[in-house]
Amino acid sequence: MLIGKACRFGGRVRSCVVYPLACLFTASSNMAKSKFEYVRNFETDDTCLRNCYIVVRLDGRNFHKFAEQHKFIKPSDNRALGLMTRSARSVMEELEDVSIAYGQSDEFSFVFKRSSTWFKRRASKLMTHVASQFSSSYVFYWKEFFGEQPLLYPPGFDGRVVLYPSNRNLRDYLSWRQADCHINNLYNTVFWTLVQKGGLTTAQAEDRLKGTLAADKNEILFSEFDINYNTESALHRKGTTLIWEKRDETVTKRMKRPNGEEEDVAVTRSRRRVHAHHGDIIGEQFWEEHPDILEDDTC
Amino acid sequence: MLIGKACRFGGRVRSCVVYPLACLFTASSNMAKSKFEYVRNFETDDTCLRNCYIVVRLDGRNFHKFAEQHKFIKPSDNRALGLMTRSARSVMEELEDVSIAYGQSDEFSFVFKRSSTWFKRRASKLMTHVASQFSSSYVFYWKEFFGEQPLLYPPGFDGRVVLYPSNRNLRDYLSWRQADCHINNLYNTVFWTLVQKGGLTTAQAEDRLKGTLAADKNEILFSEFDINYNTESALHRKGTTLIWEKRDETVTKRMKRPNGEEEDVAVTRSRRRVHAHHGDIIGEQFWEEHPDILEDDTC
Amino acid sequence: MLIGKACRFGGRVRSCVVYPLACLFTASSNMAKSKFEYVRNFETDDTCLRNCYIVVRLDGRNFHKFAEQHKFIKPSDNRALGLMTRSARSVMEELEDVSIAYGQSDEFSFVFKRSSTWFKRRASKLMTHVASQFSSSYVFYWKEFFGEQPLLYPPGFDGRVVLYPSNRNLRDYLSWRQADCHINNLYNTVFWTLVQKGGLTTAQAEDRLKGTLAADKNEILFSEFDINYNTESALHRKGTTLIWEKRDETVTKRMKRPNGEEEDVAVTRSRRRVHAHHGDIIGEQFWEEHPDILEDDTC
Amino acid sequence: MLIGKACRFGGRVRSCVVYPLACLFTASSNMAKSKFEYVRNFETDDTCLRNCYIVVRLDGRNFHKFAEQHKFIKPSDNRALGLMTRSARSVMEELEDVSIAYGQSDEFSFVFKRSSTWFKRRASKLMTHVASQFSSSYVFYWKEFFGEQPLLYPPGFDGRVVLYPSNRNLRDYLSWRQADCHINNLYNTVFWTLVQKGGLTTAQAEDRLKGTLAADKNEILFSEFDINYNTESALHRKGTTLIWEKRDETVTKRMKRPNGEEEDVAVTRSRRRVHAHHGDIIGEQFWEEHPDILEDDTC
Repeated sequence: MLIGKACRFGGRVRSCVVYPLACLFTASSNMAKSKFEYVRNFETDDTCLRNCYIVVRLDGRNFHKFAEQHKFIKPSDNRALGLMTRSARSVMEELEDVSIAYGQSDEFSFVFKRSSTWFKRRASKLMTHVASQFSSSYVFYWKEFFGEQPLLYPPGFDGRVVLYPSNRNLRDYLSWRQADCHINNLYNTVFWTLVQKGGLTTAQAEDRLKGTLAADKNEILFSEFDINYNTESALHRKGTTLIWEKRDETVTKRMKRPNGEEEDVAVTRSRRRVHAHHGDIIGEQFWEEHPDILEDDTC
Repeated sequence: MLIGKACRFGGRVRSCVVYPLACLFTASSNMAKSKFEYVRNFETDDTCLRNCYIVVRLDGRNFHKFAEQHKFIKPSDNRALGLMTRSARSVMEELEDVSIAYGQSDEFSFVFKRSSTWFKRRASKLMTHVASQFSSSYVFYWKEFFGEQPLLYPPGFDGRVVLYPSNRNLRDYLSWRQADCHINNLYNTVFWTLVQKGGLTTAQAEDRLKGTLAADKNEILFSEFDINYNTESALHRKGTTLIWEKRDETVTKRMKRPNGEEEDVAVTRSRRRVHAHHGDIIGEQFWEEHPDILEDDTC
Repeated sequence: MLIGKACRFGGRVRSCVVYPLACLFTASSNMAKSKFEYVRNFETDDTCLRNCYIVVRLDGRNFHKFAEQHKFIKPSDNRALGLMTRSARSVMEELEDVSIAYGQSDEFSFVFKRSSTWFKRRASKLMTHVASQFSSSYVFYWKEFFGEQPLLYPPGFDGRVVLYPSNRNLRDYLSWRQADCHINNLYNTVFWTLVQKGGLTTAQAEDRLKGTLAADKNEILFSEFDINYNTESALHRKGTTLIWEKRDETVTKRMKRPNGEEEDVAVTRSRRRVHAHHGDIIGEQFWEEHPDILEDDTC
Repeated sequence: MLIGKACRFGGRVRSCVVYPLACLFTASSNMAKSKFEYVRNFETDDTCLRNCYIVVRLDGRNFHKFAEQHKFIKPSDNRALGLMTRSARSVMEELEDVSIAYGQSDEFSFVFKRSSTWFKRRASKLMTHVASQFSSSYVFYWKEFFGEQPLLYPPGFDGRVVLYPSNRNLRDYLSWRQADCHINNLYNTVFWTLVQKGGLTTAQAEDRLKGTLAADKNEILFSEFDINYNTESALHRKGTTLIWEKRDETVTKRMKRPNGEEEDVAVTRSRRRVHAHHGDIIGEQFWEEHPDILEDDTC
């Protein structure tokens, strides 16, 4: 039998009736693979320009609806913001070349060092890894923030990569996002105060705020509701900034003395950990206090 | 008081002691935002070339270790493969312009239609959204496949985008991935059979397989372990292909007759749903049976 | 002397007074070079996607003014068009992977084969080489077309690269350019006929043509000036298409007979040369007559 | 006649026998054009990242052969270098946003200001325009440098674009090119001295130089040929740097006095012109003397 002959392996003849196709196919599978492998050459190189900061920004997909469905508190839900920050922290701990991250509402920006060589600076790898790690963390840590309230479906975030060549450009990017946080939060604070405390409908609140400036909004809060916007939650007004910080950590270790006795000893070590801030990052002070975040422009 | 003056809103004078900074800042916040907004222009356009298939491929990050830690069965864990497929299905249902997806081991490829205009064909949006949706789904559906075995940490997947201008190129891409599946699965099947049933150490099994061809591996399985590779699980040998299929679905509906009586009526509707296949996609048959997946090359 | 010591070469001491700087610098020049060489890594890969036609289109810079200054005949100057074509031919002869080129007015498009690997398909190399070769040829061959009329300054052309994945896309590109040629040439023909033969001012001619359709313009030419647009110069109406064609060429060679006598012998050889066409390339006929220009879509 | 009917324009019926095709075609030419115009969308955006220096470097194509055919003097032909510089100057005068250019041998680099918005920073436009203007100038000015020696064919240059985010990166790029100039010129000087004055064959000269360091080469020149490399032509050793400089220029103008008499008056104006330098650009001095070339890194 012809097929049988083709399948004579290792000196023995055996009927091939049961696996003729495998026989024919597997004989050529390596060849087949190499025949198809030319398709690899269609990949294009998307290496990020050297000596630039690489910013990956994620935005929640359809988070307006997501917030409704999960009954997020308005204007800002601390559980949701906490979960965003927890997920961002998970990204930073995975990708140590992220030197600063900034988040507000349903967005988070991650800044890779100018000199980073992670994933050979390939834009696609960097942004998909950030998007993936953030998203899986969001589901993973949901319970820590929402307890028994169930997550109804897996949420989505989309991302982008932007490069910034100078420290000034990067700081302006972060300032842009924090100014955006401020504008939105001020608006939302007044809007929901008018609705929740002032008894206006959402349409009435919208009307009331049409054309108002920041000062007008502050004034409404202060004069009508006795709210000083400036003392409202810094988390809401300023968003969340994550940076690496070295801090001394003291742990108690049980150690053995030379004489065999055991005792508790306080051991202090310097550890690099991600810390959250909710202050201003537009002015100079933050940057003067954390000089390690930015790399020298003159390199 | 100077600050007080600056804060004179709406005709009334009020002490500004409590919110001088907010006062100064908020007055200029819109301006501040627009001053920073130039940083948007650093974003670059990454629109995918028209009339090309857009392939987004995801790969598990450090999945070798992940598999170890989560005690994946060797050589292939059906729970893990099922979870991959479930997550891929979640991506397809979210992104209807994905006309075919193919997965094996810890990777999954998603093919967007040549004519797709999702996210304006922006590569970064497409790949981050796929990576994000897949990753959040992986955690979300974990329990469906692993039951009470806990997920130890949020997993990561990275992605890439590749464009294919012709049907032939796209089919060769998918063939390349399926040939890869075949080669790896055959190797792993023999390797773990030698270890699990043959009593070899992993080092011995590796030695034994060094330099063997596909035919040799088939022979080892057949002659020594009475395993016909060709009748092994198609899921393992061929991977998973997801496509949209229209099928008639019949549901029973309780309906009211004109005379007020209720009765159960069978209603049949044509619905487009994602279906999984585990057959060959290298040959012609699959493509002839599903002519809608590929678009015309002559467009 | 210290510098002298630093300059002790090959065992001998010599005064370095005359070249201390060279001495210090040249000792480290190779090192200096390698210290700077990291800047190479800032180059990005701009490889064109495989299996796509690569079109490089050149456009004259400020050619309106250039035409004025060099007294180009209106509406079309055959010397200028001839020089464009001569320059394009020079590009094609240099870059044999250009399978078709199409030009009109002050623009020329060059189409590289789908399968071309010239310059490793690097977009920057392809377009700069085309722009350079075309521009140097334009000046080089000026005299052949303009005789003693001097070229007043070196002209500039800018270029771009566009990829087309299918034969249909490529043909539509070429059709787009030829339709553009037609529209402009018809307009210009009527416009300048109204001015040159009809005695209108340019402003009056512009007014007269406002809102007219192609049919109206044909009618003006025919009824008022007895001009049948369709029999006007094909060069002007259709532009210039350059392709490679194999033609038999017969040359007379003086050859020696075995008996030592010489005689003239006609030798016919098939040679591949660039030929110019001025016909329609929108319809099927041209492509059916030249089936070698396009490569198979199913590859 | 049917065709005649289709061609009834403006109320009159006329035989269409002579131009039926034009009639049919022109009626739809605008429509045809818009039908094809979708191909424009295949162009991709290649805007250069903001706030980076844009360097366009040109290299002669096959200039080794070109130099042979045009009998360039070895090791360096001042006519050829002069023509390169003249062409580069023509580029700079056309593109004022080039703030510095550096050339040596058959290459020239053009540096666009960080803040340049020429051609909307589109890489393809910038590099093709530089390549085109340089190439047409090379032919145009040939005679000024080579007199009656004819240019045998139009030469080609290819180009590339590289972005540099910081002043340091840009200076290192220029240093890299000047170090390259030095290394090549030193080698070529010794090589051709050994051949031309030392009577060695080119093969012998190559052998002699194998493995030598810069210091060894200096020594050969000095001890064997009494040549102090450091006092050799700066043009050859350092290449050519072109920058814009403001200089007072005094011209004599014939002017009329109030009393009607004419007299010659010296008028001094500050003019910005391109000036050539042949000094070191690796060290600090050049940059301190020309502080306007670089823009502030802290922007």
